[in-house]
Amino acid sequence: MMHLLVVAHGSRREDSNLEIHQLIEQLRLTTTRFAAIDCAFLEIAEPNIAQGLRQQIAQGARQIVVMPYFLSAGRHVSIDIPEQVQNIRDAHPQIDIHIAGHLGVAEKIRRIVIEQALLAI
Amino acid sequence: MMHLLVVAHGSRREDSNLEIHQLIEQLRLTTTRFAAIDCAFLEIAEPNIAQGLRQQIAQGARQIVVMPYFLSAGRHVSIDIPEQVQNIRDAHPQIDIHIAGHLGVAEKIRRIVIEQALLAI
Repeated sequence: MMHLLVVAHGSRREDSNLEIHQLIEQLRLTTTRFAAIDCAFLEIAEPNIAQGLRQQIAQGARQIVVMPYFLSAGRHVSIDIPEQVQNIRDAHPQIDIHIAGHLGVAEKIRRIVIEQALLAI
Repeated sequence: MMHLLVVAHGSRREDSNLEIHQLIEQLRLTTTRFAAIDCAFLEIAEPNIAQGLRQQIAQGARQIVVMPYFLSAGRHVSIDIPEQVQNIRDAHPQIDIHIAGHLGVAEKIRRIVIEQALLAI
């Protein structure tokens, strides 16, 4: 069974990092499709990506999906996250690590933008 | 009828700003609930928020929803965007400008995270 690691940017504002931890708790209540769901941060906050992946591997993960929690396909999504994931792949060649499309590519985001805007009226 | 202004952060990467313009084009195809849908940028890119709002007002908008296209309720969402919107409200007291909850508060984001992750398997 897959493990899911949601990777957010990480912030100096502890409240922003807390939002990610709360998201993870909600995701755990939303689905039983993953053996475990955890978060990691690209910068500033911990666990970082390597720590998050190593922890899941230590807990028995053999297949992991890394989900970039980013709206935009900038350098972080296209270069930084793949590089850090590749380092762990190289160190643990027996582990199967996939990187999902970042959040912003999901077509349903459009519908949420509209719904959120209509809620404000 | 409402006008919708989607406010993104703005990036030095022109591709990232282009993604927002493409999102706007998709939103226009997705809904007829707004008289117009445009984008503006908090920093770096143009139009900025004041320019975006003034342009909609010049086009006849009397009610505007500002939708912060941000995942996290950081300083940008809680302070910077409201401040810049308030400046325009003060200059145009006859215009009704609402600020929607930022994208990240939408509960459906959770489901999209799961769906995107499952697509990667």
